[in-house]
Parts: sequence; structure tokens; C-alpha cells
Amino acid sequence: MVPLEKIPILGKDTIHVGFNIKQHMIDTIINDCKSSTYVIINDTNVAKVPYFQEFVEGFELSLPEESRLLKYAVNPGEQNKTRETKERIEDYLLTQGCTRDTVVIAIGGGVIGDMIGFVASTFMRGVRVVQIPTSLLSMVDSSIGGKTAVDTPLGKNFIGAFWQPSFVLVDIKWLESLPKREFINGMAEVIKTACIWNASEFDRLESNADTFLDIVNNAKIIQVSNKVTGTVDHISNTNVELMLEHTYKLVLESIRVKAEVVSADERES
Amino acid sequence: MVPLEKIPILGKDTIHVGFNIKQHMIDTIINDCKSSTYVIINDTNVAKVPYFQEFVEGFELSLPEESRLLKYAVNPGEQNKTRETKERIEDYLLTQGCTRDTVVIAIGGGVIGDMIGFVASTFMRGVRVVQIPTSLLSMVDSSIGGKTAVDTPLGKNFIGAFWQPSFVLVDIKWLESLPKREFINGMAEVIKTACIWNASEFDRLESNADTFLDIVNNAKIIQVSNKVTGTVDHISNTNVELMLEHTYKLVLESIRVKAEVVSADERES
Repeated sequence: MVPLEKIPILGKDTIHVGFNIKQHMIDTIINDCKSSTYVIINDTNVAKVPYFQEFVEGFELSLPEESRLLKYAVNPGEQNKTRETKERIEDYLLTQGCTRDTVVIAIGGGVIGDMIGFVASTFMRGVRVVQIPTSLLSMVDSSIGGKTAVDTPLGKNFIGAFWQPSFVLVDIKWLESLPKREFINGMAEVIKTACIWNASEFDRLESNADTFLDIVNNAKIIQVSNKVTGTVDHISNTNVELMLEHTYKLVLESIRVKAEVVSADERES
Repeated sequence: MVPLEKIPILGKDTIHVGFNIKQHMIDTIINDCKSSTYVIINDTNVAKVPYFQEFVEGFELSLPEESRLLKYAVNPGEQNKTRETKERIEDYLLTQGCTRDTVVIAIGGGVIGDMIGFVASTFMRGVRVVQIPTSLLSMVDSSIGGKTAVDTPLGKNFIGAFWQPSFVLVDIKWLESLPKREFINGMAEVIKTACIWNASEFDRLESNADTFLDIVNNAKIIQVSNKVTGTVDHISNTNVELMLEHTYKLVLESIRVKAEVVSADERES
């Protein structure tokens, strides 16, 4: 097993990294972001992942009596990271009577993190958001630094805001169900970061490249039934525990570098 | 004549108050907000005001060779303070090749100030904005404090951001062409502020109420021809100079109070 680590960014220990830390994430949100209304927002792909469903169930069990949990799912993919999707989410929040004390919980990859962070930044002039990145790329890059945005037909990420999340909760357990393509995308970012910043992490990558690829290539496809819709989904199941220690250190080191860069930029500006 | 005063907010002398300070406003923007692209955004009512046209002409004359001035007008009124209008402005800025160094100049009342401030806050994750309030209410209230927003069918000001303008340039000259109704709206805010914060300003208001009303009631309607469209517009023309000293002090005092409240809130948070 690996320890739970807290990484400071902009002077606060808001980034937590661990493995299988579902209950820790729930407790952190409920205890440190007290609210009458929590809203979990994700895409319909993440909704299929068993660990997501366990997270939501655990959240409901831990929810204080005076609080409520709302759930909203958007269509997956960059093509839905638009002003129109943002509007629909805003209208949903407004019709549900959300107010400035609402806490938004964004669970997903970079598309969800960017877009839901942007929703949070402009809802009632800004509400709290917790980022729970589920892809390797969003864990080591897009969830760090508070960059939020949507795309427009005229270009990507042109409309957005800087909005620091209350917490970035990185649980490597999500990588079990990550499609191979997305694992490789994320690994490219890890390699880039290691290459620039840290020779020993780069060494670790080089000497373990085969292990990583073998395990990801040998991911099993398993069938899971969706408790909500009743449908049966096919999910990739990678044995993350086999490469846990290496992955954990790489993710941790990449986040440390990004968090340090963001914090340094802030000090200089 | 009245002096040009600078009022600090959040530790910076960004609020300037004066009368007939067109060239000072132009110089401040061009010298202190250097940019390759300035964009004046206003509504089509403000576009009819001769002083507005003089401001734009003066700006073009003072523009450095390496800079350009874009102009964009929106339909007037609260019913256009929407996400849709914001999108159209964003698309205009993008098609014109605006970048992060663009300076947006919002000229108008509260609707323009709120909406254009919000556009600036999310364009490329935030560009500089200069607020030039033209209504009494926006001079003494809505331009101060960085609150920006648009309305949605579900409520007013629900979607927005806090975004501090680089400058708030308050020129009492605009009140010459302010419709009576809007002058009275603004005066209600001045009275409220004086009533809560400052007995001597409240006294000044009481003893000069008749003068204010007389002058506003006796505003002439003059015809001005629009140099751009060639159309003839009817404009209210109030003799602001007759009540200048009183108006100036009331506006100044109201802004001082608001700026102090905003700065104190920031220190406490």
C-alpha cells in the first residue's frame, strides 16, 4: 500500500494523493467544505465505473441530515465542453435552488474538470469546487493550477477563468478503469514533466516502461451492470496494484512539480 | 470648475472622478493600459450622445501607431444583459483576433458595466477592463467593487464573476444627456448612501433638492445628428454645470464610501 500524501499549492495543502481513498475524499469534502448542497457532476462514461458508484453511495451514507446531494451527468467528450453545456448545468443548478454555499464536485478527466471548474467560477459569482480527476492526464496536469475553460467553434479554451478548487483529490484507483489510450496520453505528460524536472523520476520511467505497458496492454475488459440504468457496460480493468508504487511516485512527483510552478508564478505576479 | 480626484480602492488609485475629463481618460487608458488592441463596447443609446462620439474621435487621434481601436455596440436595456449577448461579444472579439493583451473599455450604465465586465473576466481567462460609467447610478454604485454578471430567465445577476477594473473613470459630463428617470434612480442611491454614512452630505442633499429637481426638470431636448449613421437623435440636455459643485461632491462622497466598504470587505476576507 502507499501512503496518503498532501501537496501544498499556493500555500495550502489542498492536493491529496492516495490509492483507494474513497472514504477520505468523502470525509474531506463533508468536514472541510460544509454546505447545505453538494452537486456531483461527471460525464456518463465515468458514471459507468463501479468505483464512481461506490463513491456516490458512500457519499450518501456519510451525508449529514441537514445537507442534500444532487447528481448531474453530461455527455462525454471534448465536443461537449461548450458554453451551451455550461448553460444547461447553470440552469439545472438554478432550478434546484442552489445558492452561494453550494459545493460542486467535478469527477472526471480534463474536459469535466475544466468545464465544471468554469461553471463553479461564475455561478453566483463563484462557488466552491472540489476536483476529483479520474484520468492520468487530469491527475498530473489539468486539475492543478485552477485553469478552467470551455471551447468555442473559434478555438479551444478561449473562454474561461482562473478558479482554485477547494481540494484536488487524486485517487489512483480510478486508473483501473481508464482506457489504454488515455493512460498513454497521461504517461506522455508524466514523461515530459520528468524529462524537464527530475532525472531520477525519468530513470524510474525508463526502467519500468515495459512493466507499465505490459500491465496496461493486458487490462481485462469486464462487464459491470449499472445499478441506476440496469444496463450492462464493458469496462477496462487494469491491475493498478501491480504497478502501484511506481505509478504513485510518478503521479506524486508530477503534481509536486506542477504545484510548485503554479505557486512560484503566483509569488512572482 | 471642479478638481480631478483619485479615490483608492483595494489599495490602488484606480477610481478617477472629474468633469469634462475626456482627454484625461484617453491618456490614462493609453498610457497606463498599454495594448495592441482596445475595444470600446457600449449600447446603441450611448452611441447617440455627442460626448461619446467626441471621446471615440479623441481616442482615435491619440492612438499609438502600433495599436488599433475596435468598436462594438449592443442593444440597450436589461433584457439584453444575457449569456447570449455575452457570447456574441466573445465571438466578435475572437473573430477580430483579440488576445490576452486586449483592453476592453465599457462605456455605459449598469447593464453595460456588469455585462462587459463579465465578458472581460472570462475572455482568455481574463483581460483588462476599464469602466466608464455614464449613468449616475453606475457612477456611484455598480461600477465600484468589481461585481460583474448577466441575467438568466431564472433570475438577475446569477451568473457572473468578481473582476476588478484597471480603472473606473467617472466623468460627470455624461449626466448632461441622462434621461430624467435615470437621474432620479441614481439620486436615490446617493441619498441612501448619504443617509447611512454621512450627515453633512445628507444635509447638502436636503438643502439642494429643489435646485437638483428644477434643473433636471428643465433639461432641454436637443437634436443631434449622428455622424456615423446620419440619423437625427433627440437627446436630453441638462445644464450640469449649474449644479456641478453639489453633484461632484455627492458623487465623490458616495464613491468614497463604496470604495472604503469594498476595501474593508477584502481586508476581512
